[in-house]
Amino acid sequence: MSPEQFREEGKKIIDWIADYYEQIEDYPVLSQVKPGDISKSLPNAAPLRGESIDDMIKDLDEKIMPGITHWQSPNFFAYFNANTSFPSILGDLVSSGLGVQGMLWATSPAATEVETRVLDWLADMMDMPEQFRSTSSGGGVIQDTASTAALTAIIAARERVTAFETNEEGLHKKLIAYVSSQTHSSVEKGIKIAGIGRANLRLIDVDENCSMRTNLLEKQIKQDRANGLIPFFICGTIGTTSTTAVDPLPEIGKICKREKCWFHIDAASLGTAMLCPEFRHLADGVELADSYSFNPHKWMFTNFDCNVFWVADRRELINTFSILPEYLRNKATESGEVFDYRDWHIQLGRRFRALKLWFVIRHYGVEGLQQLIREHVRLAKEFECWVNESEDFEVVVQPTMNLICFRHKSDDSFNLKLMNTINEAGKIFFTHTKLGGQVVLRLNIGQTHIEYKHVKNAWNIISLTAKELELNT
Amino acid sequence: MSPEQFREEGKKIIDWIADYYEQIEDYPVLSQVKPGDISKSLPNAAPLRGESIDDMIKDLDEKIMPGITHWQSPNFFAYFNANTSFPSILGDLVSSGLGVQGMLWATSPAATEVETRVLDWLADMMDMPEQFRSTSSGGGVIQDTASTAALTAIIAARERVTAFETNEEGLHKKLIAYVSSQTHSSVEKGIKIAGIGRANLRLIDVDENCSMRTNLLEKQIKQDRANGLIPFFICGTIGTTSTTAVDPLPEIGKICKREKCWFHIDAASLGTAMLCPEFRHLADGVELADSYSFNPHKWMFTNFDCNVFWVADRRELINTFSILPEYLRNKATESGEVFDYRDWHIQLGRRFRALKLWFVIRHYGVEGLQQLIREHVRLAKEFECWVNESEDFEVVVQPTMNLICFRHKSDDSFNLKLMNTINEAGKIFFTHTKLGGQVVLRLNIGQTHIEYKHVKNAWNIISLTAKELELNT
Repeated sequence: MSPEQFREEGKKIIDWIADYYEQIEDYPVLSQVKPGDISKSLPNAAPLRGESIDDMIKDLDEKIMPGITHWQSPNFFAYFNANTSFPSILGDLVSSGLGVQGMLWATSPAATEVETRVLDWLADMMDMPEQFRSTSSGGGVIQDTASTAALTAIIAARERVTAFETNEEGLHKKLIAYVSSQTHSSVEKGIKIAGIGRANLRLIDVDENCSMRTNLLEKQIKQDRANGLIPFFICGTIGTTSTTAVDPLPEIGKICKREKCWFHIDAASLGTAMLCPEFRHLADGVELADSYSFNPHKWMFTNFDCNVFWVADRRELINTFSILPEYLRNKATESGEVFDYRDWHIQLGRRFRALKLWFVIRHYGVEGLQQLIREHVRLAKEFECWVNESEDFEVVVQPTMNLICFRHKSDDSFNLKLMNTINEAGKIFFTHTKLGGQVVLRLNIGQTHIEYKHVKNAWNIISLTAKELELNT
Repeated sequence: MSPEQFREEGKKIIDWIADYYEQIEDYPVLSQVKPGDISKSLPNAAPLRGESIDDMIKDLDEKIMPGITHWQSPNFFAYFNANTSFPSILGDLVSSGLGVQGMLWATSPAATEVETRVLDWLADMMDMPEQFRSTSSGGGVIQDTASTAALTAIIAARERVTAFETNEEGLHKKLIAYVSSQTHSSVEKGIKIAGIGRANLRLIDVDENCSMRTNLLEKQIKQDRANGLIPFFICGTIGTTSTTAVDPLPEIGKICKREKCWFHIDAASLGTAMLCPEFRHLADGVELADSYSFNPHKWMFTNFDCNVFWVADRRELINTFSILPEYLRNKATESGEVFDYRDWHIQLGRRFRALKLWFVIRHYGVEGLQQLIREHVRLAKEFECWVNESEDFEVVVQPTMNLICFRHKSDDSFNLKLMNTINEAGKIFFTHTKLGGQVVLRLNIGQTHIEYKHVKNAWNIISLTAKELELNT
């Protein structure tokens, strides 16, 4: 394909995407296919000779779209949103077009320096403590996901507590990590990968707000120390997955300092809210953290993958992850004047990761981003009011921001039936969790193009379908 | 931004990328900026109000481009190529546009089923043994990088040898891994992350072809067993980073079977060559492997990140990595009829990863891909001949495929000076390594748009610059 053909074919794809967003509400939000349906529609073997982009577009429409769950639909209320935006798509397109490897500063200096600057911008925009900036002792790096960020923090914590002996000699100590029972399962996955073992991850019980009970945390640490074990890592969450609960970060932070544990804050879901001064109290205690991560690919209009990971002391991170073979030696690295981001995470290779974030921040501006976040929180408040005003439904936990956890006042099976009936009808899509053994419905509001009418419509569908189901049972 | 505005702005970006490729040879291949130059040109704070896409394009041209090393230039001969192609860029654009989360089958079935099918296609295209197909005991998954693939293999191997006890209880055994002294540093990084410890990674010496000496491997294993240590993982390479050497895989495979070690093959750089039947002998022994990985983002015209990771037994992988919290429970997962790719790797979230590969394979067709690979190997052969025919230069190791390791017959400092002088002039860019303590120049041929004239030009520049430097010293 020549650049001239790319001009033509590329514009067809741009049009295809624009058409998709114009028609997105016509699709069932949740894909209605059965296992194997998409597979059956695809050829068993690759073509011997090349096919046209038109053929691919046709197959996108006919074969792929039925198997798509429309995460970008304004009627998508499931899980956490993973919103994107047009400027983000364009920023990532530029990154694909440039096709550079940003593993070292030297392999494309702009990929590193834009990333460093954009994450410093973000630290300012969120009023993060000074130490998380590149101009101070720490700095930020874009990770792919919050799971990888948590693993990265766990490994750095493991090396700190074992004085880098694990990297050298392997793990010989009984290290103990602490999370709440509501913490995202990625920490468990990270603990396993790091060789710590799931049995050495303590799930601390939560209070009625689903926040970690720090008296139980302190008790557990004391008991572990009495048994000769070594506490090394505590993760606090801003916005747990089930209910967007917030852990008592200032207290956890103090315990971490006293116990010499690494303090990681997982703000994957709600971190974006720190753009607004009125929500920043959720991050109180961040000044005590060793690392902090949040996902612009959840709520900040940036397409997957894009996780922001800040550390207070970059030396610890770099000492944990750096390796430098001969074929990558270069003057810039050896001068110590530059960041080589391959030494800040698990992977070695990396694309120009910051471009989409740079496009998003510049397109919306700080005020534009704040306005959207505030509107989502306002819409969630509306939905909460409707639930509270209804006779049939109840809010289960006080919403923190943009997620409402609610249920029909009847039993679990009715709630699951209600959810499945609605999701199969395809007008909206939402999901569930369990709290105290009870099924709870989750409605998450964070789509880029969501408006009042979509939230109102969701409530109408939920409340009317419940009435219909009640009549039929 | 509305879909209508996206149509307009998106086409500007498509044109910008097309213009870039038309003008790519006008840029110095290696960015000429100094540390901090790009940073200085960027504002210290994010804009309060939104800016236009035109502003961003202007900044791309003026501020970003000077800091880009042009990996997609046909005059880029450094490291390994990380080539991309227009169809790949378009496939990834569609993925960005759809913005789906493919973590589970249920979260967008097409993302999973297209990936499974495309990797089965590839297994056919490369004549991989039956067990690596999804229709048999194994299957493929797209990882981000070969480093992550190696880490994934190491963790699965660790769990196999410890009967999943490490995941549960933490690492308590002295596990030993084996690579050659030429193996990519990512295995060392993975061994550290997995809690094994660098001291437990044995670097086995190589022969004159830079291939692992299996007699030394056997000796080392015997010695380790005698010391009560547990061999668990051996990595063989098809295309080492310094010289694209190939390890004796059939012999390593037999040793792995006998010693009950996980056999991982890292074919990151040369795996793409298996598209051509005449090069498949390089992968002899793959039938004995537990896992195999190669990078379409290196030589298969697919933009970063895209690593293909095949396993012979998917159950081992899934048992190692799966976790299922309540909020992700769904009928499809519980039926066991579907793959949930989050359980096949480190991260949990994932985008629609297979689309760009689907676009690339369909655009070129099997024969089109074969033709390009053969042409690159032919061009490398040409360059090798010119080196052999010259009085001043010598080929240092017999090339395997598309990388020529050579040097000027004078000393190390002359070779480094030659390379730096040429790279600073910006017409071409190539890099070096060290073999037996000696500086060796590397010229890698794998660019999407490379032609004979580019390779000839590279040789002219290298040989003429050497003459000039000789005259001046």
